[in-house]
Amino acid sequence: MAMVKMVEDGAAPKEVQAVFDDIKATRKSDWINNFWKVLASSPATLQRIWSNVKQVMAPGAIDPLTKEMLYIAVSVTNNCEYCIHSHTAAAKAKGMTDEMFAELLAVVGLANETNRLANGYRIPVDEQFIPKLD
Amino acid sequence: MAMVKMVEDGAAPKEVQAVFDDIKATRKSDWINNFWKVLASSPATLQRIWSNVKQVMAPGAIDPLTKEMLYIAVSVTNNCEYCIHSHTAAAKAKGMTDEMFAELLAVVGLANETNRLANGYRIPVDEQFIPKLD
Amino acid sequence: MAMVKMVEDGAAPKEVQAVFDDIKATRKSDWINNFWKVLASSPATLQRIWSNVKQVMAPGAIDPLTKEMLYIAVSVTNNCEYCIHSHTAAAKAKGMTDEMFAELLAVVGLANETNRLANGYRIPVDEQFIPKLD
Amino acid sequence: MAMVKMVEDGAAPKEVQAVFDDIKATRKSDWINNFWKVLASSPATLQRIWSNVKQVMAPGAIDPLTKEMLYIAVSVTNNCEYCIHSHTAAAKAKGMTDEMFAELLAVVGLANETNRLANGYRIPVDEQFIPKLD
Amino acid sequence: MAMVKMVEDGAAPKEVQAVFDDIKATRKSDWINNFWKVLASSPATLQRIWSNVKQVMAPGAIDPLTKEMLYIAVSVTNNCEYCIHSHTAAAKAKGMTDEMFAELLAVVGLANETNRLANGYRIPVDEQFIPKLD
Amino acid sequence: MAMVKMVEDGAAPKEVQAVFDDIKATRKSDWINNFWKVLASSPATLQRIWSNVKQVMAPGAIDPLTKEMLYIAVSVTNNCEYCIHSHTAAAKAKGMTDEMFAELLAVVGLANETNRLANGYRIPVDEQFIPKLD
Repeated sequence: MAMVKMVEDGAAPKEVQAVFDDIKATRKSDWINNFWKVLASSPATLQRIWSNVKQVMAPGAIDPLTKEMLYIAVSVTNNCEYCIHSHTAAAKAKGMTDEMFAELLAVVGLANETNRLANGYRIPVDEQFIPKLD
Repeated sequence: MAMVKMVEDGAAPKEVQAVFDDIKATRKSDWINNFWKVLASSPATLQRIWSNVKQVMAPGAIDPLTKEMLYIAVSVTNNCEYCIHSHTAAAKAKGMTDEMFAELLAVVGLANETNRLANGYRIPVDEQFIPKLD
Repeated sequence: MAMVKMVEDGAAPKEVQAVFDDIKATRKSDWINNFWKVLASSPATLQRIWSNVKQVMAPGAIDPLTKEMLYIAVSVTNNCEYCIHSHTAAAKAKGMTDEMFAELLAVVGLANETNRLANGYRIPVDEQFIPKLD
Repeated sequence: MAMVKMVEDGAAPKEVQAVFDDIKATRKSDWINNFWKVLASSPATLQRIWSNVKQVMAPGAIDPLTKEMLYIAVSVTNNCEYCIHSHTAAAKAKGMTDEMFAELLAVVGLANETNRLANGYRIPVDEQFIPKLD
Repeated sequence: MAMVKMVEDGAAPKEVQAVFDDIKATRKSDWINNFWKVLASSPATLQRIWSNVKQVMAPGAIDPLTKEMLYIAVSVTNNCEYCIHSHTAAAKAKGMTDEMFAELLAVVGLANETNRLANGYRIPVDEQFIPKLD
Repeated sequence: MAMVKMVEDGAAPKEVQAVFDDIKATRKSDWINNFWKVLASSPATLQRIWSNVKQVMAPGAIDPLTKEMLYIAVSVTNNCEYCIHSHTAAAKAKGMTDEMFAELLAVVGLANETNRLANGYRIPVDEQFIPKLD
């Protein structure tokens, strides 16, 4: 159970409902998931986070599916159960196959391992890896 | 400075040199970066980690550039300086542009933020996100 | 279910009961929450942690409510479900309003985001931020 | 050294300079710290993050000094060197004394400890801590 | 519920069953725990991770019980519920007593606390601690 | 450089010097490392943390060398540079060989990997792993 009461789609104050409507229109979907219903308890937070998500997750130099997979990589590393589920569902809706999911978790697992080897051995960064910024 | 003495390419015991040679051949490169020179202090670890990296980072259902970006997402979340540098260099070599790097960090930052909103509000997972497994 | 058997208030060995009684007296409360009942399985740990909490969370240069909010900030960042719940309840008992809780989570989320931007971009610390310690 | 070239105040493209000017006006300060100079390499990120920081860190139900201390609590937990330095400087400018800093770190340290005791012992959340949301 | 369908022992494809059989033989056990049944959805991952675990957790310079306790220390720090349970069960089977478990969690908790004090105060590493590697 | 001025051994206020003397006597050593010199800026913190370390790290059901290795496991997972260096030095002084250090890091790395596989796949805990508590 959430820490605050969820605001339901269709029974929301005007400013909240406007965000809910924009979420549904942007996603071409007819429902609002719990993340937004909970954030709606603080309308300023709801508006701010939705506008961030809308901007950051839009198609750009990186395609939307890859962005969802990056989201999963972070969420698995932090063990955010809600985010793992919601972004895995989103990634599947955008075309992630079971084989891609398996490879994604394999990379995430391995990166978490080698991160600790690099940190534990205090490996100095090779000069060749430092960006030349003239 | 690393916690252990690095083993130099060309001055390595036979089993270590064999791994170094395979790294260079696989990468079509003529040098060995510090990560492997440090792991070489433990030949069993060197062989094991290299064989993992070779398998996991190979082209598959996910392309090698996307895999490098997933690696960066994890490394930034964990703040592994060495890994951020080495995998950013690798991603650039595979075609990551400055704009892609900016979008990658934007996604990583946002995911770390919303992970905490989801965890802090203890948001329950929507039934719609739970995989139907049969 | 906990990893060890909880020790119940009123049915505890003498040294444990003395800590339970001190917890209740300090908090002007008549019950013991699960955290202490579980730690009581190791009396040395129970005494040590309670004496730390009592010292650190007491009024000082920072007021008790702010200390509870700092506790929540850490617990949300680490995703400790128990601690989020227990310290949010404690903060509410000390006067935290719903609006304060929303702002608290907003700061925690944003800090987790900008932490990754700073780490990912490897931003050098400005000289102006380094304390002058003469 | 940062991963990207910093954009200097006074030599920035128009849209970036507008953000720089707003930062200085909002803070009643005459310089721009490295965080913003680095984000300026991606104008969309610069504008987005600054507008988030400006909204979230403004006075509200929680005062600005407490918000800075919450920021430090998160940054210390994540070990973000840049953020620890920048927000400690900001907190001092807003009135944080040495004694408050010591107590802040004491709470952060203790919370990180008890988070692991709670997680390690898998302590069940007391019913009394669950919010009644009717 | 897991994100993927588990592969049951006795009803597995040949390559998967071979790993299951090796797990049971190595552990002198007659059942397969969920971790492996889930990984089996990706046979390449199953084989890779099992061969890593088999190599790393084998008796060596560090005895198997100590290795299990190190595993718990990491799992508690990361709050991996599955891993805390599975490796605590394994450690108990190898001789970890209740008193040892209590001391283990005490060390893990304290280390997480002092890690933050060291990071928060930005304590410089003493020259005496830097390995002399000639 | 630390965030606060270090208090030097031999030039410390009485209550601080008493702790410094106890540290040296307990360790049969003649110097004080930076961790304690920094904590000494807050005598209450110095006394509290030293008394915790003294109690937790003492010989008990787990031997002091194993405790140091557990400390390293946590510190590597959290990437605390100071703690990795100080506790690796301490572990070496207590008998940790190069081979043990390599195995320790191998376990820490692998645990960080499998933690993410378990969390990412949301693997349910086997009933057999749940402690039977009466």
